[in-house]
Amino acid sequence: MTATDSQPPAKPAPKDPWTLPDVSGLVVGVLGGTGDQGRGLAYRLARAGQKVIIGSRTAERARTAAEELGEGVEGADNAECARRSDIVIVAVPWEGHADTLRSLRDELVGKLVVDCVNPLGFDKKGAYALRPEEGSAAEQAAALLPDSRVTAAFHHLSAVLLRDPEIDEISTDVMVLGEVRADCEIVQALAARIPGMRGVFAGRLRNAHQVESLVANLISVNRRYKAHAGVRLTDI
Amino acid sequence: MTATDSQPPAKPAPKDPWTLPDVSGLVVGVLGGTGDQGRGLAYRLARAGQKVIIGSRTAERARTAAEELGEGVEGADNAECARRSDIVIVAVPWEGHADTLRSLRDELVGKLVVDCVNPLGFDKKGAYALRPEEGSAAEQAAALLPDSRVTAAFHHLSAVLLRDPEIDEISTDVMVLGEVRADCEIVQALAARIPGMRGVFAGRLRNAHQVESLVANLISVNRRYKAHAGVRLTDI
Repeated sequence: MTATDSQPPAKPAPKDPWTLPDVSGLVVGVLGGTGDQGRGLAYRLARAGQKVIIGSRTAERARTAAEELGEGVEGADNAECARRSDIVIVAVPWEGHADTLRSLRDELVGKLVVDCVNPLGFDKKGAYALRPEEGSAAEQAAALLPDSRVTAAFHHLSAVLLRDPEIDEISTDVMVLGEVRADCEIVQALAARIPGMRGVFAGRLRNAHQVESLVANLISVNRRYKAHAGVRLTDI
Repeated sequence: MTATDSQPPAKPAPKDPWTLPDVSGLVVGVLGGTGDQGRGLAYRLARAGQKVIIGSRTAERARTAAEELGEGVEGADNAECARRSDIVIVAVPWEGHADTLRSLRDELVGKLVVDCVNPLGFDKKGAYALRPEEGSAAEQAAALLPDSRVTAAFHHLSAVLLRDPEIDEISTDVMVLGEVRADCEIVQALAARIPGMRGVFAGRLRNAHQVESLVANLISVNRRYKAHAGVRLTDI
C-alpha cells in the first residue's frame, strides 16, 4: 500500500454560492405585467439591459403599458409572452393566480417560472396572510405546472421604488426559493442584474409561505415609519 | 364666520416612531433561559446593562447557567423568574411552550410577555414551519395568557453571535409584534439596548406566524452561505 492509497478520493471544492450564471441573454416575460408590481419589475429589469416582454389578458393593453415603460419593453397577450420568454415572472393578482397558470400550462412547459405573488387579505386592521390550500402561491404554481421549473422570488420589492426613474439603486435582497439549485441560481443572477440587489438562496418551496406573507409585516412597517421597506439579510 | 372658524381643530403632531421609552430600570426575565437562545439573549441584555433573571424548571439549573453567564445575571425557577420580572421573554422550546405558559398564568398576570419561540420541524430536507392551531406561538401565548400583555420579538437572532463575547455589535433589526403600541415600544426599546440592534414595529400578532417561520429560511441561508444570517429592514 502506497501513501496515495490512504488518501480519500479528491472532492471538488465547494462551489462559491455567489458564483452565478450569465443571464443577460435570456428573455424575461412578466405575466400580469400591467399591474403595479409587474410594471415595476419589467421596468427595472429592462433598464438593467434585460429583454423584457410584459403579458396581459389582451395584447393591446400590454402593448400600451409597454410603450409607457420604454426601455425596449414589448407587450403581448399572456400566452405569447409565456411562449417567447425563457424566464416567466408571475406577477398577477392572487385572485387570478390559479386560473392564469392553469390556462398557460402548455406555454409554460420547460420554462423557468418565478412566482412573486403574495396572497394577502385586507380589512380595517390592515393586511394579513392568506393560506393557500397548497401551502403558498409558489406551491400552488408548482402543483398546477408540473412540467415547468417553478421558483419563487421578488416578493418584497416596493412597486413605488421600482417605478421611480430617479432611483438608480434599490438596496435590498431578493430571497429566492426553489427545489433545483441551477434554477434558483438563474433567478438569483437575474435579481443581481438590478443595481443594489442581491439574489439570495433562501430555501425550498415548502418554506415559501412565510416569505410571501412577510409582505403583510412590511405593510405595517411602511405605515408606521412612512417608508417603502425592504429586506436585507445580514452576515452574508 | 371668522377665519379661525374654518380651521380644523389642532391635531397633535404625529409621534416620531423612533422615540421610545427608557427601559433601563426594568427587570427582564428569560423563561427557558438555560437554552441556547435564552442564554444568548440574557447575556446580551445583561451586558447592555439590563437586570436579567433567567428561569428554568429547577432553580439550581438556572443558577448554574446564570453563574456561567456572569454580567450580574441571576437564576431562579420559572415561577420566581416570572414574578420578579417586569418583562418576561419566553425562550422555551416549542414543545414545552403551551405547558410552560399554562403553568405560569398567575405569575404572568399584568406582565409584558415577549414570545420569541419559532415553531419549526426538521427532517432530512432541513427545517420547515409548523402551524400552531392558534396561528402562531405568539397567538398561542395570547390565548393562554389573557391577563398578560403579549408581544412577539427576537426571533431572528443567532445564538452563536449572541453568545460570542468577542462580538460587540450585532447588526440586525428586531421585528416587534403586538396589539398595544406602548407595549411594543417597550420591547423595541429593549432590543435597542443591544449595540447594533433596532427594534422595529412590524405588525399585529395575527402576522406573527411568518415572522416566526422565517427562521426556517434563515437556516437555509446559513447552510448555503456558511453564515449566521439575520434580517435588516431597508428604507427605515
